[in-house]
Amino acid sequence: MALQCETRSANKVYRDSVCPMAQSRPAYHNATYTFDSLPLLRGGQLGPVTLAYETWGTLNAEGTNAILLTHALTGNAHAHDIEKPDDVKAAWWNPLIGPGCPIDTTRYFVICSNVLGSCYGSTGPASIDVRTGRPYGMHFPVITIHDIVHAQHSLLTYLGVRQLALVIGGSIGGQQALQWSISYPELVNKVAIIAATPALTAQAIAFSEVERQAIMADPLWQHGDYYPGQGPITGLAIARMLAMITYQSEEAMEQRFARRPARNSVVPSPSHTSDLGGRFDVEGYLFHQGALLAQRFDANSYLYLSRAMDLYDVSEGYPSLEAALRRLRSKALFVGIRSDFLFPAAHTRWLADKVRSVGGDATYLELDSPHGHDAFLKEWEQMADALSLIINDAV
Amino acid sequence: MALQCETRSANKVYRDSVCPMAQSRPAYHNATYTFDSLPLLRGGQLGPVTLAYETWGTLNAEGTNAILLTHALTGNAHAHDIEKPDDVKAAWWNPLIGPGCPIDTTRYFVICSNVLGSCYGSTGPASIDVRTGRPYGMHFPVITIHDIVHAQHSLLTYLGVRQLALVIGGSIGGQQALQWSISYPELVNKVAIIAATPALTAQAIAFSEVERQAIMADPLWQHGDYYPGQGPITGLAIARMLAMITYQSEEAMEQRFARRPARNSVVPSPSHTSDLGGRFDVEGYLFHQGALLAQRFDANSYLYLSRAMDLYDVSEGYPSLEAALRRLRSKALFVGIRSDFLFPAAHTRWLADKVRSVGGDATYLELDSPHGHDAFLKEWEQMADALSLIINDAV
Repeated sequence: MALQCETRSANKVYRDSVCPMAQSRPAYHNATYTFDSLPLLRGGQLGPVTLAYETWGTLNAEGTNAILLTHALTGNAHAHDIEKPDDVKAAWWNPLIGPGCPIDTTRYFVICSNVLGSCYGSTGPASIDVRTGRPYGMHFPVITIHDIVHAQHSLLTYLGVRQLALVIGGSIGGQQALQWSISYPELVNKVAIIAATPALTAQAIAFSEVERQAIMADPLWQHGDYYPGQGPITGLAIARMLAMITYQSEEAMEQRFARRPARNSVVPSPSHTSDLGGRFDVEGYLFHQGALLAQRFDANSYLYLSRAMDLYDVSEGYPSLEAALRRLRSKALFVGIRSDFLFPAAHTRWLADKVRSVGGDATYLELDSPHGHDAFLKEWEQMADALSLIINDAV
Repeated sequence: MALQCETRSANKVYRDSVCPMAQSRPAYHNATYTFDSLPLLRGGQLGPVTLAYETWGTLNAEGTNAILLTHALTGNAHAHDIEKPDDVKAAWWNPLIGPGCPIDTTRYFVICSNVLGSCYGSTGPASIDVRTGRPYGMHFPVITIHDIVHAQHSLLTYLGVRQLALVIGGSIGGQQALQWSISYPELVNKVAIIAATPALTAQAIAFSEVERQAIMADPLWQHGDYYPGQGPITGLAIARMLAMITYQSEEAMEQRFARRPARNSVVPSPSHTSDLGGRFDVEGYLFHQGALLAQRFDANSYLYLSRAMDLYDVSEGYPSLEAALRRLRSKALFVGIRSDFLFPAAHTRWLADKVRSVGGDATYLELDSPHGHDAFLKEWEQMADALSLIINDAV
């Protein structure tokens, strides 16, 4: 019988700051792994490469009880907080992970690594380029989801993982989960691909490009060469404002904000200008969200990782989409979100159908949520049900 | 019997540049009207006020055959071009206006004025504030749709119009048409409200605020005090990129661009940075659209007019929504667009139902178009049918 999710162990998690350009940015990981060189899908190579990661639970002797969690765009390795297991905000999937939880740390060895290109301890644009002794900035190479997955594979090999019981993630994490099952079909027993599609729509790429332009138009961006300064915090805040709209939905924003005036106007707008005819609540909320991200994330990482999302096409590197999907041998759960307009549920469903049509074992499930793309970080009960389904072999 | 739409008269249209800060900006109008003072809905007054306008056709002796056209956010008075009647791009509603067209200039006296706050000849932030002798900039007062309509009313009185056979417009023009029928019910015989709703959603306000932040974060904005310079052309281009996404739809962008690479990469991005891993066609298109608007529109006008859209609530100034709508005595046609996510069709339909529920004469019609909010500037056949319906009393 499974333990109650509330009964949790109390191992220590180490936190330290590793982003070289901002000591104030929190970075969550309890270990790092460095390897010499990573060949890149679009040419060239990157090295040395460090990945910061956290693990929970114990790997069995066969190395077969591992679950890999792949985080979202501005996320990090801290999927679970064993010191604050009941604090939803202490880690990005806290309610789903722990002893007796759907991702049960008494049964599984759970791994989450900060992705290549990010700024929470893994190699990214803010890291030192050993060739020059200075941060990469925009000399960092264009990276793809394939490269991110390839780097994770090196980490898992180092950790002794010989079989992945499950790879699971949402959004750019869902793209990674999908690519894992195609790049390394022999290693992935099950895969759960949440709020992800075979490739971004033109509209999603368009939003993404507006966000990047906002960052790069900020004079403090300085063509990416702003370290050790804070960089383009105004542009990054504006980018985040837009991203937050695309992560939600018209329906959810109407429920939450409608046309109410701002409850408070304490947070200045990114441009530090005064409100024109009052401030709406939704504006105050977006200013707040923009300011939060600008404090904690590296703008260049945002450019590279959002671009990796745009560039991702599951068929890249294979003769056809079908040829790519035919490689998949995992039991696959595809989870769409009813109100997601960034990664439309219809596209996720289409992908599941396509996998089945080429002989794969794919199930589609839809979260009935108004919360848009971000529902996989909010709908805990539906997410727990979905995870239990795939983990307990009910699908 | 109506003339064929192709048979057109050949009066001369005068064009001259009136935006004080940019001689290169085209301004379309064949006349201006100036009056002393306009009291404003949210307090204070503005004066003197000039409205630039164009007219086509002849006002009858009774002053009852006038049609008022209300243009969209970055539009102008040039709804029809009698020198280039067959050039769709020569004027914003060219295919719908002219002898024998749905808006028949042999039967009606057709008027379009550049809105208050704009930069095509009418008083706006770029105009000289007579109190200081300098351009208003951000000393321009917050204006509302009510104020815009009030100013148009002064113009129509001056022109001798005693009855409006029809007021018609889309988007912010639809807000104006709606407000006309409520502010001046005794003057408006018929009204057609296209792609407009009782008030913007939280999501639409949010997009709008991101656009304004992009403008105001541009160092060349200089708190609005950039005249006679070009001003924040980078920020305005980024704002336009985002706006263009919201004027279209996921469906239409997918049809038009999908994930194709850019056909050409001639137009620099607003931030003049190089592409990260290639350029998608949708990005090249948005860069082009951004650059076009930055050349032709005043950034401060963009701030004030987009804010007027956000602030508009049809119930403002009345005891309730029902009280406002009960004033409407016109035969009203509401036109929603299936794929519009900025002004959702469901909201337009809801408004039509609401008008009927308080005793009004309202018909709802939906454009079946993938083109999103902008469909009223693209779906000529469906628009011609809709206009013929309301003009010829078929609804």
